[in-house]
Amino acid sequence: MEKYFYKCFDCGKSYSKDEIEKNLVYLCPVCGKVEKNQPLRGVLTVEYDYKAIRRNFSREEFLKHQPGKFWQYDFLWPLEFENGKMKSVDEKLLHRVTLDNNSLLEFSYEGKPFLVLDDTRNPTLSFKDRASSLVALKALQLGIKEIAAASTGNAGSSLAGVCVRLGLKSIIFVPKNIPEAKRIQIQSYGADIYLVDGDYDLAFDTCLEISTQKKWYNRNTAYNPLTIEGKKSAAFDLFISTKGKMPDLIFVPTGDGVILAGLYKGLRELKELGWIEKIPSLISVQAEGSNAVVRYLADQKFKYKPASSIADSICAGAPRCLYMAYDAIIKSNGNAVEVNDAEILDAQKYVAQNFGVLLEPSSSSTFAAYKKFINSNKLDGKTAVLLFTGNGLKDTSALKNWNHTVEPFTKEQIYNKINSSF
Amino acid sequence: MEKYFYKCFDCGKSYSKDEIEKNLVYLCPVCGKVEKNQPLRGVLTVEYDYKAIRRNFSREEFLKHQPGKFWQYDFLWPLEFENGKMKSVDEKLLHRVTLDNNSLLEFSYEGKPFLVLDDTRNPTLSFKDRASSLVALKALQLGIKEIAAASTGNAGSSLAGVCVRLGLKSIIFVPKNIPEAKRIQIQSYGADIYLVDGDYDLAFDTCLEISTQKKWYNRNTAYNPLTIEGKKSAAFDLFISTKGKMPDLIFVPTGDGVILAGLYKGLRELKELGWIEKIPSLISVQAEGSNAVVRYLADQKFKYKPASSIADSICAGAPRCLYMAYDAIIKSNGNAVEVNDAEILDAQKYVAQNFGVLLEPSSSSTFAAYKKFINSNKLDGKTAVLLFTGNGLKDTSALKNWNHTVEPFTKEQIYNKINSSF
Repeated sequence: MEKYFYKCFDCGKSYSKDEIEKNLVYLCPVCGKVEKNQPLRGVLTVEYDYKAIRRNFSREEFLKHQPGKFWQYDFLWPLEFENGKMKSVDEKLLHRVTLDNNSLLEFSYEGKPFLVLDDTRNPTLSFKDRASSLVALKALQLGIKEIAAASTGNAGSSLAGVCVRLGLKSIIFVPKNIPEAKRIQIQSYGADIYLVDGDYDLAFDTCLEISTQKKWYNRNTAYNPLTIEGKKSAAFDLFISTKGKMPDLIFVPTGDGVILAGLYKGLRELKELGWIEKIPSLISVQAEGSNAVVRYLADQKFKYKPASSIADSICAGAPRCLYMAYDAIIKSNGNAVEVNDAEILDAQKYVAQNFGVLLEPSSSSTFAAYKKFINSNKLDGKTAVLLFTGNGLKDTSALKNWNHTVEPFTKEQIYNKINSSF
Repeated sequence: MEKYFYKCFDCGKSYSKDEIEKNLVYLCPVCGKVEKNQPLRGVLTVEYDYKAIRRNFSREEFLKHQPGKFWQYDFLWPLEFENGKMKSVDEKLLHRVTLDNNSLLEFSYEGKPFLVLDDTRNPTLSFKDRASSLVALKALQLGIKEIAAASTGNAGSSLAGVCVRLGLKSIIFVPKNIPEAKRIQIQSYGADIYLVDGDYDLAFDTCLEISTQKKWYNRNTAYNPLTIEGKKSAAFDLFISTKGKMPDLIFVPTGDGVILAGLYKGLRELKELGWIEKIPSLISVQAEGSNAVVRYLADQKFKYKPASSIADSICAGAPRCLYMAYDAIIKSNGNAVEVNDAEILDAQKYVAQNFGVLLEPSSSSTFAAYKKFINSNKLDGKTAVLLFTGNGLKDTSALKNWNHTVEPFTKEQIYNKINSSF
């Protein structure tokens, strides 16, 4: 029996590894669907023989792993290994894509401690490296040298950076309104970049068509099941870093819903393996101007609405992974909350000045939501982890706005200023 | 006997820990001198009882430590410990200032492998965090809540970020021509920033005077001996990460000379402890427009010359730590080389597009120099490590210049473009 197989999230049909991977199939061959301004249908998940894993590996042994080197526990990844070594991938390449392994930080707010899973020090300074790494390692094992993706920013620069580190070529399709700073990051890594004359949807379609024709591997988020699978490493890193003492709640910034889906996948596996008793409740955090998950949670009806928010990394009018994200929230007994742009910017400033972590606005949304929970006594003694997903230097526009030029002063003037303020 | 004492680099006089630390003395009380546009005189080093350490600790045990958590080997740091715990510093605070512990990367150029010590994923994304962390931990143990520094950029944002993480206040004095991006990083962490109406020298003086008057701890680079001491952790991280197999050469970006001095200090200690046989040769890399070390090496005469280079982090007309840097080069049988701005920018681009690491121009100078060594066959089979000291997102001006806007295209146009280029 193969180590793993693929299963359709919607229709439940299973597929062997070869049926999917050899033919470069990404969505369910039966019910998979890519439609304009709609969440994807027929997203696949990777499934393992959890009973066998449970028999062969212990919780205690698993907890000895190092966070950030997810491939060390080879039995939980859709990759090939031989004698404990990853096939087709040199050890020194793996070293280059190791994630931050000191990512669990503790802070406190209003006297209450909380934890942070800080992905701002990953190779390209964002959480997306979790997905890009797994996808790129798979490409190496498939013998494919080119990976394409549609992106509004971080996924593209993450793929571009990870590809260079692993000796692969990346081709990134971006909408014409991509923020300049994000475009520059993608280009800096030498990726081939194509600006499509339209929105993210058109970039997504264009990328699909061309990569299929060219037989490039495709990293479109949610579309390639390994983007979800890669993000499950956050659940394992959290499990290892907390020494198995998982929190009650996890606050997750949500655009396309892939982090929610991936995180839940990892947590569900830890539960199936008997290594955690209860899955933490996932709190999906959205920007007010991009709240499709919040709306879907209310009435289980998806209605497309153009998204707009300062937090561009979580802006998604049609979250590609909506149905799986919804499932993650419901099954984890979680919830979805929204915060407005002013709250997001306040949180960004608060986090920088009180915790010393520079965040992108999309990331600080989790702290904005946490603050609301604290201030309205909704936490109720529960422990919480916040995901910090993108470094503030990836998008300095907001930092610039709240840090104004200061006037130069003479030594005497500075003396006077300081003596009057201290 | 105390675990450590201070010794003047120039006159050789020794001082007890209390003589220096209790009175907030930084330079040698006998010969210490701060002069306009001159390197500092009377810089102190921290000295330990190496014979005792050699008796009590083995190389093998030392090599088991984790890179990035330098405080774990308490016997080599001027800090107080009790029962293996750092006094006055909570464990969770230490966690927040842990450096990248996956910093040793291997790449190759022209078919020849070389190593990189990558400090671009430290808490504030620069090498300066090594110095800031030690200084800030010392402030905590001295019971001082405010730390001041003069800075042209990275040292200031590093101190500001590290201070917030450890619950301290920072006051940063910057010259009026500080690059906007660097000023914003310092301000974002909520530091008090003062723009002095003059150059770095005036910022340095102003900072000294005011911090002395206010009894703030001072992190001026080279002036506070712990800035040099903190940077020695790079030597230990390299030793641990290479499992004791040290390279023949280390390429070090050089402005004030503190990295050179600190690195040599750590290497000298490894030698005194009998843990390495030979100190690697330190190759000081300077920008053509800021080449005081190169010039001093030629004739041992310091003559001030205003510095100018795109690599602002290594721009220093009067390297504060010049004499110690010179000593490090001579005693390690090293050398100093210069690269021009065009070579630095080429190297920045090459490193991003071939190794997937975004660097500040100052950092890419080491690759520019390494390339010259390779291309002129000067390496002669020797192994090399390059220091990568600052993340490219800290200064995106150069990245912007070589990444131009791309035109939006229709799907058909993109098809045609790709089909003609692949």
